[in-house]
Amino acid sequence: MQIFGHIEGHSEGVEFQNRSEIKSSGLHKYHIAGISRILGVGSDCIILNGGYVDDEDYGDVILYTGEGGRPEGSPRQTFDQPFTKGNLDLSKNKFTGDPIRVIRGPNLREKQYAPKDHYRYDGLYFLEYYWPETGIDGFRIWRYRLVKENSSLPPLRDPNQHPARVSITSHRIQRDPNIPRTLKLKYDFTCQVCGIRLESNDNPYAIGAHIKGLGTPHNGPDSEDNMIILCPNHHYLFDAFAFSMNDDFTLIGMEGVLTKKNNHSINIECVKYHRDLFERANH
Amino acid sequence: MQIFGHIEGHSEGVEFQNRSEIKSSGLHKYHIAGISRILGVGSDCIILNGGYVDDEDYGDVILYTGEGGRPEGSPRQTFDQPFTKGNLDLSKNKFTGDPIRVIRGPNLREKQYAPKDHYRYDGLYFLEYYWPETGIDGFRIWRYRLVKENSSLPPLRDPNQHPARVSITSHRIQRDPNIPRTLKLKYDFTCQVCGIRLESNDNPYAIGAHIKGLGTPHNGPDSEDNMIILCPNHHYLFDAFAFSMNDDFTLIGMEGVLTKKNNHSINIECVKYHRDLFERANH
Repeated sequence: MQIFGHIEGHSEGVEFQNRSEIKSSGLHKYHIAGISRILGVGSDCIILNGGYVDDEDYGDVILYTGEGGRPEGSPRQTFDQPFTKGNLDLSKNKFTGDPIRVIRGPNLREKQYAPKDHYRYDGLYFLEYYWPETGIDGFRIWRYRLVKENSSLPPLRDPNQHPARVSITSHRIQRDPNIPRTLKLKYDFTCQVCGIRLESNDNPYAIGAHIKGLGTPHNGPDSEDNMIILCPNHHYLFDAFAFSMNDDFTLIGMEGVLTKKNNHSINIECVKYHRDLFERANH
Repeated sequence: MQIFGHIEGHSEGVEFQNRSEIKSSGLHKYHIAGISRILGVGSDCIILNGGYVDDEDYGDVILYTGEGGRPEGSPRQTFDQPFTKGNLDLSKNKFTGDPIRVIRGPNLREKQYAPKDHYRYDGLYFLEYYWPETGIDGFRIWRYRLVKENSSLPPLRDPNQHPARVSITSHRIQRDPNIPRTLKLKYDFTCQVCGIRLESNDNPYAIGAHIKGLGTPHNGPDSEDNMIILCPNHHYLFDAFAFSMNDDFTLIGMEGVLTKKNNHSINIECVKYHRDLFERANH
C-alpha cells in the first residue's frame, strides 16, 4: 500500500545513489516524474533536483513548480501547465493535510541544500498554498508552497522504547487512501446528506468520513462500511455531533435521510456507536 | 498575544517549579485550570497532573478529560460536564488543526511520564478526536484524544543557522486568533457567500479565510480587511479558485454577491490579488 508520511526503515537523512533505488524504497513511485501520486488522492512524495528553473528552495520552505507545459526533453515552456495529474493530486494535500516526503537531488541550484552526488530523503513537508502564476517563458505554471514539519527539537523519549511512535504519520492515523477514493467515485463526489457536489477547475471534491473513529479508544475499522461521503459542511456537523442517524439511515438532529447506494453497505454497529456518542453529547 | 505552538525561549523539555512560573512563561494562561484557552478560538495549552481520574497517559497519545462536573474542591463528579468554556474551546482544535502545548506535572499517575517534583513542557500535540462518555461516577465527561507531533527524528540542519524555523508553528504560519474571532461575531458565524450558519451543541462554527494568502510569496496581511467569513464548503471553493469576486463584491464563477457588513472594510488590493489568481487558474 502506498502511504503518506514516513516509511519504516527509511529515516530522514537516508541517502540513495539514484532514482531506481528511491523507487525500490517505496518513498517515491516513479522513475522520472518529480511528483509521486496516490492517484486521485494526493501526492505522497516529491523530488527536487533542479529540473524546473522556477523552483525556489529555502530549506524549511520550498516554492515548488508543477509539471508539464513543455515538450518532452525541452527545458523551455511552450504551453500552460495543465491542472491535471501530478499538479492536481499535489494540490489535494492542501485540503487533506497529508504530509509529503521531500527528496533532494544533487542538481539542485541551491547548493547549500543539495546533497553531493546522491539523493537524500529530507523528511515531511506540508502544502500550505498552491496558486497559478506566469513563468519566465510567459505560460502558466502551478506553484506550491511547502513548509517543513516542525522537527527542530530532539525527541522527548527514546523512540526505541515507544514502538507505537513509528506508526504515527505526522499527527494522523495511517489510513488506506484507496477506500475513500473508491467510495467517492460510487457517489460521484456528492454528499450523502445534502446531495451537493463541490467542483473547482473541473475537479470534484468530497470527504470520506469515518463513522466510528479510528484509533484508541474507538478502534473503528478503516473500511468502506465504516465510511460515508460528505461535503465539508456536513463533515463538520457529523464530527461535532450535530447530527447522527438511525439504523434505517433517517437522520437525527436534522431533517432527511442519508442517501445510500446499493453497492455501499454500511456497518450498523458503527452507526450505533456514532448515535450513542450523539445522544450523550446532546442529552 | 496568546499564540498556538512553541513559544520562543521555552524549548521542549524545559522545567518549571510551579504553576506561577508556567503562567509567567506564557505557555499556559491560568493558575489552576488545566485547559488554557484562547477564548472562543481554541486551546493553546493543557496541563496533565493527575487531577482527573479518567485521564490516560500513553506518552505520545493522551486521553484527556474535560473540566467541570464536580463541586469545587471535590474529587468526585456529581453532574454532567458541560460543553462550554475549556471543554468547548479545546474541541475547536480538532477543526482548526491548531497544536496544543502539553505540560506534565509531578502528580501524574503514569509515573514513567511524570517529572519529579516539577513541571515539564513536553511539546506539541494535536487533537484527533473528542467525544462524550460516562465517567466512573455515572455522569457525562468529555474526552479528548491528543497525539504528539512527530518529532522522533533529529533535525536535518542546525536550527541556529535557520532562524526562520523558530517562527514556524507546526506547519502553519502564526496568525492572530483575535482577528477571525471578532469578525465571526460581526457576521454571527454566517457565511458571507451563502448565508448558512452551522451549529452544533448550541455552538456556531465558521472559518475566517484570508483573501490574499499569508507568507511567501503572497505576503498578505493578517488583518480583518484581508479576511472573509465562510462556511467550510465555500472556504474550500474559495481556496481552490472555484470562485472569486469583483471590486463591488459580485461573485465570479458563481451567482451572487458577497454579503458585507458596514463595519467590515475589505482591502480591494487583496480582492484584486485573489481575482488575478482565479483568472489564471481558469483561463
